[in-house]
Parts: sequence; C-alpha cells; structure tokens
Amino acid sequence: AAASMEQEFIQRLRERLPQSNLVRVGIGDDAAVIRDVGEHVVTTDMLMEGVDFELEKVDLRRVGRKALAVNLSDLAAMATEPYAAVVAVALPRAQGLVTGEALYDGLLPLAHQFDVAIAGGDTNSWDGPLVICITAFGRVTPRGALLRSGARPGDDILVTGEFGGSLLGRQFDFLPRIAEALWLHRGYELHAGIDVSDGLSLDLARLAEASGCGAELHLDRIPISVAARQLAEQSRSLSPLEHALGDGEDFELILAVPPAETARLLSSELPVPLTRIGQFVPQSGLWQVLPDGSRVPLTPRGYQHALT
Amino acid sequence: AAASMEQEFIQRLRERLPQSNLVRVGIGDDAAVIRDVGEHVVTTDMLMEGVDFELEKVDLRRVGRKALAVNLSDLAAMATEPYAAVVAVALPRAQGLVTGEALYDGLLPLAHQFDVAIAGGDTNSWDGPLVICITAFGRVTPRGALLRSGARPGDDILVTGEFGGSLLGRQFDFLPRIAEALWLHRGYELHAGIDVSDGLSLDLARLAEASGCGAELHLDRIPISVAARQLAEQSRSLSPLEHALGDGEDFELILAVPPAETARLLSSELPVPLTRIGQFVPQSGLWQVLPDGSRVPLTPRGYQHALT
Repeated sequence: AAASMEQEFIQRLRERLPQSNLVRVGIGDDAAVIRDVGEHVVTTDMLMEGVDFELEKVDLRRVGRKALAVNLSDLAAMATEPYAAVVAVALPRAQGLVTGEALYDGLLPLAHQFDVAIAGGDTNSWDGPLVICITAFGRVTPRGALLRSGARPGDDILVTGEFGGSLLGRQFDFLPRIAEALWLHRGYELHAGIDVSDGLSLDLARLAEASGCGAELHLDRIPISVAARQLAEQSRSLSPLEHALGDGEDFELILAVPPAETARLLSSELPVPLTRIGQFVPQSGLWQVLPDGSRVPLTPRGYQHALT
Repeated sequence: AAASMEQEFIQRLRERLPQSNLVRVGIGDDAAVIRDVGEHVVTTDMLMEGVDFELEKVDLRRVGRKALAVNLSDLAAMATEPYAAVVAVALPRAQGLVTGEALYDGLLPLAHQFDVAIAGGDTNSWDGPLVICITAFGRVTPRGALLRSGARPGDDILVTGEFGGSLLGRQFDFLPRIAEALWLHRGYELHAGIDVSDGLSLDLARLAEASGCGAELHLDRIPISVAARQLAEQSRSLSPLEHALGDGEDFELILAVPPAETARLLSSELPVPLTRIGQFVPQSGLWQVLPDGSRVPLTPRGYQHALT
C-alpha cells in the first residue's frame, strides 16, 4: 500500500497544477513537452535540510516557496520572463506525503503569481535529510538576456532594495525581482545584472570579474536593512554595514548602468528603492572609496560552499 | 581557503566542458542562455546515496554517468534529441572536490557521446549523503514527441533488448536508447513509448493506463537477460521471468506499434533486438495470456518510492 503512495501523490499533484499554454504535456509522461519559446534561459538550485533550512525552525511551506523563489531570482537577474519549472525532491520516508504536500503548498502560490507552470518532477523518498531541487526556465525578451559580463568601467552600480540580516526572515519571504528587472530592462539601458544570493560584496565582485573590470563602493551609500541593524545588535560581532555587505540571501539586484542613464533611472517610478552605491572601474578587484576620494581594497565577503 | 574551492571547482569545470552552438551562455552566469530549439522536452531525475547507489560498492564515475543516462533514457522514451543538461549536486564536505570531479569524469564522456551540452549547475556541500540531480533537455523532431498516451487497443507491444537482473551491472552501464528511438520514430509509425525504469510490467501498466487501455502479455515471449537468470540462481527466491517482469532499471523501450507496421519493424536492421511480447486491449489492466488463449490478471511489479 505504501508503494502506491508515490503515484497517489503525483496524481493529486497533477490535479492541483495550473494549466499553461506553453506546456503541451506536463507531469505524467517521461518528460514535459514545452512549446517553442524562442531563446530561453535555464537555472537550477538545490536546497538541503541543515544547510539552507532547519526543519525544526521553519514552516515547510516557506522552504517550498524559497526553492522556487531562488530560481526566479536568477531569472530576474537575467531579466527574463519565467514560464516553467520542474521539481525534484528527496522526501523523508516517514511523513513524506505531508512533507511533499507542504512544499507544494508553499511553492504553488508563487508559481501562480509569476505564471510559472510546474511542468514535471521527480518524487523520491529516503532516510536522509530533505532535499528539493528546482530547475526553472525563462523566456528571453526582445531586449536580450542581461548578463553578468556586460559592465564597463565608468558604469554606475545600482542596487534594488536593502541589504543584510536576511536570516531574520527575508531569506524565505523575499519576492524575486522579476517585475522590476523586466520593467527596468525594457525601459532603460542596462549593461549587466546579478542577484545577491551569497553577499552584496561577493556577488558584486563576481559581476565585476565576469565583466573584466573592478568596482569601487561608497560604503556610506549602502542601503542597510532594519534586519541588519537588529542582527548586529543581537550578535554584537559584526556591524550593520558588515551584515549588509556579507550576509547574502537578500535576493536584490545589482545592476551596471551607463552614467547617462542613471539620473533617469533614479527618478523612475519603480516601487522598490534604487540606490547608486558606486561605479565600475578599470582596475580589477573590489575597492572602498574613502572620504578624501582615495581608495583601498575591500575584501569580498559572503557565503561559499566549503569543499575540500 | 576552503571557501574558494567551490569557485575553483566551477572554474575547472568550465574549462572541461565542450562548447555547444545551442548554448549561448553556459556555466558562470545566473542562468544558461539557450538558443531557440523549437518545441522541446524537459526531464529531471535525482539520484541519492543509499537509495540509487552505495558509495562503498560503486565507482563514482558510474554514478555520474548514470545520473545523466537516466535522463537521456527519458528523452529516448519521448523520441527526442538531447541537447543540454544542468547538474545540481550536494557533495560531502570532506572529499567534496574529488567526489565532484569523479562524477563529472563519468558523465562528461556520455554527454559528449550524445552531444549534450552541460549548460549550468549548482554545486553545494554538506554533511549529508551524496545527491545528484540532473535536468535534461531534448529537441522534438518533425515527427513530434512520442507520448505514453497514444497506444490503441490492437496495437502490438514491442520491446528493445532484454530484461531483469540490472542490479548485476546494467543499472549503471546501460546505453540510453536515444539512437534507436530516433531511428524507429523517423522510419516507422509508433503510437506510444516509455522507458523501463521501475519494471517491465509496472511501466507497461503505466503506458496502458495513460493510453486508456489495457495490455496482455505472452510471458513466454519476454526476453530474459542472462543477468536475470544469474540473479535468480543466486537469490533462489524469484524466477528469471519474475526478475525480468519486475526488476526495473533495464532502461529499454516499450513501444506501441500498429499491427500493420510490426512485421516491417521486426525485420528492420536495428542493431538491438526487438521483440513482440503482447498487445494492447480495450479492457484496462495488465493480463497474462494462457496457452489456451484465455487470460488472467497479472499484477504489475516494480520499484516505487515508499511514502507514508
């Protein structure tokens, strides 16, 4: 009887999933058939119990939502329109059905909100920790995909939103900047973009490196979140600014913008705040601009998976 | 220092990956950019240590190869041409680099053989068991995708290859039936197809159900592999036929073929044996044809993930 639960889970899932014009054949065949969408992008992210979340501390629905949201944030960083995703899970054998349902309870509303068809998946069970791996697809707009590699020396560094302290909740509840990215990419000239998953300073350094240039920051301009200040007060080991520069999981956007476009962008009617925090420079590396205009190296900080 | 190993791993990976005309931007950006390929299919599969393989018993290269091969088998079942895949891994923290490299050592030759671009991925580490989740993409040919749902009563049931005993090695070393599926789909009228991952009888029952019909089998016609006979002799609990019907991981194809096409198909020059093992019937369910022509119900057997 237990064996047929997997089929039952998949059957119930099929009934819950919204239809999509782009997905000709969804869950239930060997693969999902997706109509011609032109040039498209693909991204994959795996979340693991004990690393990305603690089962005792977080509602499973927030885990399911986050597993999709981190992918959508990558699609936002490319300024592409999400259209589909596939979901692979390793569920605990005991409570696997309830766990699976809760993950979908969390991710389906977000999928609906951004018109993402859940086109297929792979449902497994085991005695190990919970793992969820989502692969998501976005359609490239007529403006093309926004890459990491397009920043040029002299471009301004603009960021959406505020940084730091995502541990206090934003790491699960953030809204991927899809709408903002598409709106900005359509109306303004953007040279490059990345989303902040591992840390503002680390991801900025990555964008700069991919573009073959460096970046200098005015640290007094970094938008510091209330959560970063709260966390600094609680931990007393890092300052609010250090939290903002290195915490990660803000899932805001860093954009490279030609200076001629900056004023128009900063006065745009985007509901999310945009802040100019520095500019790209010819010399590689990350730099801090001092009050006297000189600069000193700044070490990129953030989350990286330790491998030995 | 350990932290930068992830970046180093990804950098080394980038240098090893073959280029592809279809992948405009590969590993290293927020998402991979894939050119317009028309209608396409997507499939995802997760392999977990302790469920799909035992680290002590199998070379990691075979695990990496299998993680891609199971996806390619799904693409074969749809009679589509593979073109790209993305790879997400949860590596053990200790020996993570060596483990990651070994997985790629195994999957890259198979990717090369079938012209599959590794377009992106997600590299994680943790203290949990090894997990690898691959999502693969196939291009639909002018003949359209071969679905599970197209079998009609009266269609013959044809299978490639032999069944049973995949535990003895085939579960890792099988060659996905991509070439065979494309060749058959181009030259012959096929109504439906599925690959045998969970068990010949179970996957046949799924194909029949998806097509809204049943299937009757001549058990004396089932091609039984040498490995199934070996396993039966070792275990002494199941017969070779039972192994063939229920073992799973054969990764052969089950095809629904209109009877007018069967003779031509069986005399085709396909290098892999094709066998007619029964036919689809109006009554739902799986049936065994007895020597006197009458039939009795046959219980589908195979592997299903237990969920409670």
